Amino acid sequence: MVTKADMSEQELDARHAEKMRKKKAARDKIMATKTIEKGLLIVHTGKGKGKSTAGFGMIFRSLGHGHKVAVVQFVKGRLETGERMALDRFSDLVTIKRMGEGFTWETQDRQRDINAARAAWDAAKELISSREHKMILLDELNIVLRYEYIPLEEVVAYLRDEKPEDVHVVITGRNAKEELIEIADLVTEMGQIKHPFRSGVKPQEGVEF
Amino acid sequence: MVTKADMSEQELDARHAEKMRKKKAARDKIMATKTIEKGLLIVHTGKGKGKSTAGFGMIFRSLGHGHKVAVVQFVKGRLETGERMALDRFSDLVTIKRMGEGFTWETQDRQRDINAARAAWDAAKELISSREHKMILLDELNIVLRYEYIPLEEVVAYLRDEKPEDVHVVITGRNAKEELIEIADLVTEMGQIKHPFRSGVKPQEGVEF
Repeated sequence: MVTKADMSEQELDARHAEKMRKKKAARDKIMATKTIEKGLLIVHTGKGKGKSTAGFGMIFRSLGHGHKVAVVQFVKGRLETGERMALDRFSDLVTIKRMGEGFTWETQDRQRDINAARAAWDAAKELISSREHKMILLDELNIVLRYEYIPLEEVVAYLRDEKPEDVHVVITGRNAKEELIEIADLVTEMGQIKHPFRSGVKPQEGVEF
Repeated sequence: MVTKADMSEQELDARHAEKMRKKKAARDKIMATKTIEKGLLIVHTGKGKGKSTAGFGMIFRSLGHGHKVAVVQFVKGRLETGERMALDRFSDLVTIKRMGEGFTWETQDRQRDINAARAAWDAAKELISSREHKMILLDELNIVLRYEYIPLEEVVAYLRDEKPEDVHVVITGRNAKEELIEIADLVTEMGQIKHPFRSGVKPQEGVEF
């Protein structure tokens, strides 16, 4: 049997070309079956970093195409300054609603958190239903659902039955509810393999905020 | 025993405030130990979506702070148009090197892919060593390492021994090598829970590209 180690560079190249020709044919065939265009419900969850970051990445990508987009922040931390300043360069296309009052352990005030969550959710529904934005990021919605500050059934019913067909909605936050995952089109779980806090590294500009 | 259902709203609020006060105290104590500032080696891997998207999200966050950044694309697909057009609004701060020649199954030419990977890696090293950029995204570097187009030992040795202390490097792509994870500060694995291609949905503007 001829192993990879026995092959000349020329043989490796030829084998590679043949393999990639087949891969392309298979891929083209599969992609030809993907014909549906629709507004997606996208969820980023898990304990790792990158949930909101990838959500903002999608917002910037959509902005690159000249789409109008909106961001509703359900939990306002001090950590989103970089995103906000970057979005300022697209102020013609972006609507931002910063409704949350800070992390729950910062406010220490359940009623204020509940009121803020309700106001944010009402704003989110209005933005989505208006169909004026191609993509809407509901940043950290999972957190307020986890604390039961807004009834899960209300959120699921709206997103399943009332979200316009052509609007993308991106939801972030740990501990996404099963019922939300159930109705979503695209769900990614960010898993933490290594985190620099463990080595005593502090939150840094451009990395955490 | 008093259960949550027996409690009045006032009691729930009081219990919440106490719990959050303790959480904040614990959190503040932990965060006080995080004092180190350093350029991080960050890896986004896994089969799910969001690896490059979160990488670009970090790039935009860093741009928001007014930092200079650079992006080296090791595999040039047709799918990065949104990011590129969004980065155009920051042309004063961004350096982009698009070195890859396309997906391996598009070029079907191993030698061309190897040459492109080498040129991209040489450009990446130059950008990192120059210390002119606060953050450098090496998009899809993991792919060329997987195909062994650049020796893994060379990349690991450079990032471990020669990367300047104050530069953040973000590496994306599936199948990150163990040796790379070993030397990284922050590693997130994007896991695929649900993907819209499975329901026949095609790649869409702002979502996939």
